[in-house]
Amino acid sequence: MSKYQKIYVLGAGAVGCYFGGMLARAGHDVTLIGRSERVQAINEFGLEMDCKSFQDVVSIRASDDLSVLEDADLVLLSVKSLDTEKTIKAIASIVPSHAVILSLQNGVANVDIATKWISNSVYAAVVYVATGMLGQRTMKHHGRGELYVGTLQPAKEWDQENLAAICKLFEGAGVPCSIAQHIKKDMWLKFLVNCAYNGISGIGQITYGEMVRVPEIIQQIEHTTEEFLAVARAEGVFISEAEALEANALIATTMVTQRSSTAQDLARGKKTEIDFLNGHILELGKKHGIPVPYNASIYALVKMLEQSKICQSVK
Amino acid sequence: MSKYQKIYVLGAGAVGCYFGGMLARAGHDVTLIGRSERVQAINEFGLEMDCKSFQDVVSIRASDDLSVLEDADLVLLSVKSLDTEKTIKAIASIVPSHAVILSLQNGVANVDIATKWISNSVYAAVVYVATGMLGQRTMKHHGRGELYVGTLQPAKEWDQENLAAICKLFEGAGVPCSIAQHIKKDMWLKFLVNCAYNGISGIGQITYGEMVRVPEIIQQIEHTTEEFLAVARAEGVFISEAEALEANALIATTMVTQRSSTAQDLARGKKTEIDFLNGHILELGKKHGIPVPYNASIYALVKMLEQSKICQSVK
Repeated sequence: MSKYQKIYVLGAGAVGCYFGGMLARAGHDVTLIGRSERVQAINEFGLEMDCKSFQDVVSIRASDDLSVLEDADLVLLSVKSLDTEKTIKAIASIVPSHAVILSLQNGVANVDIATKWISNSVYAAVVYVATGMLGQRTMKHHGRGELYVGTLQPAKEWDQENLAAICKLFEGAGVPCSIAQHIKKDMWLKFLVNCAYNGISGIGQITYGEMVRVPEIIQQIEHTTEEFLAVARAEGVFISEAEALEANALIATTMVTQRSSTAQDLARGKKTEIDFLNGHILELGKKHGIPVPYNASIYALVKMLEQSKICQSVK
Repeated sequence: MSKYQKIYVLGAGAVGCYFGGMLARAGHDVTLIGRSERVQAINEFGLEMDCKSFQDVVSIRASDDLSVLEDADLVLLSVKSLDTEKTIKAIASIVPSHAVILSLQNGVANVDIATKWISNSVYAAVVYVATGMLGQRTMKHHGRGELYVGTLQPAKEWDQENLAAICKLFEGAGVPCSIAQHIKKDMWLKFLVNCAYNGISGIGQITYGEMVRVPEIIQQIEHTTEEFLAVARAEGVFISEAEALEANALIATTMVTQRSSTAQDLARGKKTEIDFLNGHILELGKKHGIPVPYNASIYALVKMLEQSKICQSVK
């Protein structure tokens, strides 16, 4: 029996619904925490999982009430980076001290933000999955779905055990999951790919496959990557050009038909995570005195689209 | 009586229709040269001018046949920069040697391109007008409409006379027109504004007024402008930061509700002039070894949208 009996997924977006759904489908006790419309739809009709290898309607509990987390053993954190601080502050006095938190989020800031406000163990997961929500209760899975987990804090003796249990839990539910030897670097590699692809896919509302058919975009990605690597080095993360090239190439070939989460947010008139992607590189660039004009351009244009799309959706 | 009896407008887009229409409305003999659908619509129903100060249907000749230019006295060149070379080559053996050509186009390359293929006098006009086409025969005028004309070649004795006659012609038709003392600099100032605003307006499909409400876009414009000024200096054009600031600010305040021609082209799935705007700065930057990452980013993203929009419109 898993040591994680009561599992909560904080943030019922596509990523939360995919991994929460996979665990629920394998028989685990999972509750999705999200906005009331989604909660209602999922409680009433179940979570529809339209996956690459199966279609299924999974019955899974959903709630918009954070107080249910009082019996949590494992919390999957899948809210937008924008909401990490607010969410962790809200649950800090609710979750039991033994509960373990696993961040499935984009960017490299979330674990530090969470650890600032809660004393529980917070682990990082690097997530590669192509998913999107269609309506309130349908999660469309386009491909991949593996997790790499690890600790960013100095490892304590129980960390290895917790991480091994997390891997066992997911593996048993059909989700490839392994402990990363260098989770920080893995996070930065994912972060790189997000900085290189997300904004551009959002600006063009186009798929990764379409993007890389444009020679000027290939160059834009190369320059964004060069700037990123310089900033990463200044932050003590050493990624070689070859590693960067490989990480970028992998996305273009394994997620051909995927639009970024930034693209999805913009299309819905929602705030994006761009402050935690190219915006974060801009901040770190300023901190270290490294010019990052290519990242800055992507950032500025996404901020513009964000504001004009939010205005449109308010109208 | 004007020395320019037979006037032809090459390119019946919004700019050509505005200035051609103003001359025709004042009683001049004007023929618009354009694509057959537009030509047909204008010949049948007239050119509808929906201007800031008047609404009128102007009867004006239109043709899709270049051979009619054999009696031209004045040719207004208002095709896209992309089509300058092709168009001038096609009319070189048709227009009489006394005919004068006035380029109303964007960018700084057109007069040189034209002069390469034709021996007639080719003058430059710097155009400030906010216009757009609604359907085939309606030209919507949002504001401004003044011309600054001059010669980029070493001035010959008759140039001053020709330019004065052009000014008189336009002034008599209600179009403010003056001879610019420094036409090359004026062209580069317009070119600056095009490089600073057109691409971004196109990427966001938003007006100049909306753009400059986004702080990150103000910065993007500032950086694009810095790069532009360095390239201009290398090309022998000295624009001060204050002059640049003033030119940029003027657009944001006098063309608040305008979307750029780049935005209009993208919205219609047409090729834009971006190769002659930020793309030209990219080329000149390479030539002079000046890095222009902000211009390069705008360029790459417009090229991407161009290709995806063209694909959409073909579908």
